[in-house]
Amino acid sequence: MKERVGFVGLGIMGRPMALNLLRAGHGLAVHARRAEMMSPLVEAGAAACGSPAEVAAQADIVFTMVSDTPDVEQVILGDGGLVGTIRAGSVVVDMSTISPSATRAMADRLREHGVEMLDAPVSGGERGAIDGTLSIMAGGAVETFERVRPLFEAMGRNIIHIGGNGAGQVAKACNQVVIAQTLVGVGEAFILARASGVDPARVRAALLGGFAGSRVLEVHGQRMLDDDYTPGFKTALHQKDMRIAVQAAHELGIALPGAAQAAQYINALVGRGLGELDSAAVFRLQEELSGQGHGEG
Amino acid sequence: MKERVGFVGLGIMGRPMALNLLRAGHGLAVHARRAEMMSPLVEAGAAACGSPAEVAAQADIVFTMVSDTPDVEQVILGDGGLVGTIRAGSVVVDMSTISPSATRAMADRLREHGVEMLDAPVSGGERGAIDGTLSIMAGGAVETFERVRPLFEAMGRNIIHIGGNGAGQVAKACNQVVIAQTLVGVGEAFILARASGVDPARVRAALLGGFAGSRVLEVHGQRMLDDDYTPGFKTALHQKDMRIAVQAAHELGIALPGAAQAAQYINALVGRGLGELDSAAVFRLQEELSGQGHGEG
Repeated sequence: MKERVGFVGLGIMGRPMALNLLRAGHGLAVHARRAEMMSPLVEAGAAACGSPAEVAAQADIVFTMVSDTPDVEQVILGDGGLVGTIRAGSVVVDMSTISPSATRAMADRLREHGVEMLDAPVSGGERGAIDGTLSIMAGGAVETFERVRPLFEAMGRNIIHIGGNGAGQVAKACNQVVIAQTLVGVGEAFILARASGVDPARVRAALLGGFAGSRVLEVHGQRMLDDDYTPGFKTALHQKDMRIAVQAAHELGIALPGAAQAAQYINALVGRGLGELDSAAVFRLQEELSGQGHGEG
Repeated sequence: MKERVGFVGLGIMGRPMALNLLRAGHGLAVHARRAEMMSPLVEAGAAACGSPAEVAAQADIVFTMVSDTPDVEQVILGDGGLVGTIRAGSVVVDMSTISPSATRAMADRLREHGVEMLDAPVSGGERGAIDGTLSIMAGGAVETFERVRPLFEAMGRNIIHIGGNGAGQVAKACNQVVIAQTLVGVGEAFILARASGVDPARVRAALLGGFAGSRVLEVHGQRMLDDDYTPGFKTALHQKDMRIAVQAAHELGIALPGAAQAAQYINALVGRGLGELDSAAVFRLQEELSGQGHGEG
C-alpha cells in the first residue's frame, strides 16, 4: 500500500525536500503559513491545504520542517494543528531542529492519539536539501523508522537511526556543538599563525593531513582564509541550535563549557547584525579581538 | 657530495627517526645524555659521541630531538653544545616541539656562525616515527629546506615548508591548539548524548560523515568510547605543547580563549597523575564534571 504523504513548512529547506518527495513519485498534501510558498509545490503536482489539520486529514505520514520548537508545537498541537484530524496509525516526522525534551513531550502527546512520531533533523544545508543528499539523524521506534525510510531516501543519503524519541535531536545538537568548537579552534590557529607572521593557508594545508584534520578545517577554514561567508549555514540558525544544546545541558544538569563559550561568539556575531553570514564568520570576531580585523562586514 | 649527518636526542621519537636515517644509508654520528640510549644506534652502525659538540665536529647536518625549549638551548648553545665546533655552511635541524620565539633567537645566534637552522617539529607520534610516516612542518630558508629534504624523506611522508625560522613551530602549535579544542568538543558531544540516554557510539557514527567529521572524532572519539587511553600522544606532552601555544599568545598579545580553556583540562589531567595517558583522556574529566565518571584511572 502506497503511503499518502503530507508536508508542512516549505521554506528554504522544506521546499526542496518536499519537491524531492514529489519527484520520487509520492503524492503530496502541503501547507505553509504563507500561501505563496505553496505555489512551486502545487505547480509540481502537490495539493495545497489551508492548515496542518487539512494536511493530516489527507496523509498517513506527515513531515514538518519549520523554524523552532514553538513552531513545531503550533503545527502539531495548536489551533488547526495536525493532532485535530490525524488518524491512529499515522506518523508525524519532524525534520526541524528543535529541543530534544520538547520532542519527547510531543511524541508522548501523539502516542495518546495512536500516532507515532519520529524526530529526524538534518544536516547538509540548502545544497543538501536541493540535491537530496542530506544527512538525516532519526529518533523514534525502529519499526516507524523503517516504515518512513523509503521517504527519507528521497531526501537524504546518510540516514541513521540514533535511538528513541528525541535521539535524533540529541545527535543534531551534538553535531552543532562539535562544529561550533571546531570552528573556534581552527579560527584560533589561524589567528596564532597570522600574528606570528606565518601564512594560515600553509598551516591549513599542513594540518589537513594529520590529527588536526577535519571537514571544518577544510571547508570553513577556506571560508575564513577567503573572508567569504556566503552560507553554507547561517549564523542565526547556528545560534538557535546552540541555544538548544545549552538549554539541554541546563535541563540535564551537565557542564558543556566549550559549547557555552563557542555560543558566545555566535551570539555576538548575530548581535553585530551578521546573522545571515555563514557561522564560520566567528573568525571575524576572533580577528577583531586580536587586532587583525579589517572593518565590519 | 654525500652529507655527513648527526643526531642528538635518542628518546622515544629520536631513536626510531635516527634508525630510519641509518637504514636509508646515511652515516650517522649520535649523542644522547644517557650513554645506554646510544647502544641500538651503535649496533646499527652509528658513531657514538660524548657531546653535541663532538657530533657537530663530524657532521654537516645535525638533527636535534629533545624534550623542551631549555633542552634545545642546552644542546645548541650550552657547554659542549653544537655551536662550539660546528662549521660555517652546516645546518642544525631541530625536530623537537618548542617555542617559536626561542627558535628564532637560536636561528639568529647560529647565523652569526654561518650556520643555517631549520625548525621541523613533527606529528604522528611514536608509531609515525617507527614507520617513517611522520608529518614534518618546517621553518627556515627554503634552500636549506630543499638541502635537508632527502633526509626528511627517510623519516616522514607529509613534509611541508611552512615559512621562515619558527614557522614550523608555529604550525605545530596551531596543530595542538586545534586538536585540544576538537577533543573538548567531541567529549562534550558524548557527554550530552549519554546524559540524554543516547548511545554516543551512534552519535559518533552519524557525525563522522558530515561537517562535524574529524580525525579526532574518528580516532580519539573511539578511545573515549572504549575508555582506552593507551597513547597515542601523552597528555604530559600535550600539556607542554599547549603551554608553548598559550605562551606564544602572551608574547604576541593575542587572545586564544578556547585554547586556554582546553589547556586547563590538560593541566588538571596531569595534576591527577594521568599525564602518561593519551590526551583524549580529557574525556575522563568531562565525565566526572557531569557525574558520568566511573572511578579514577
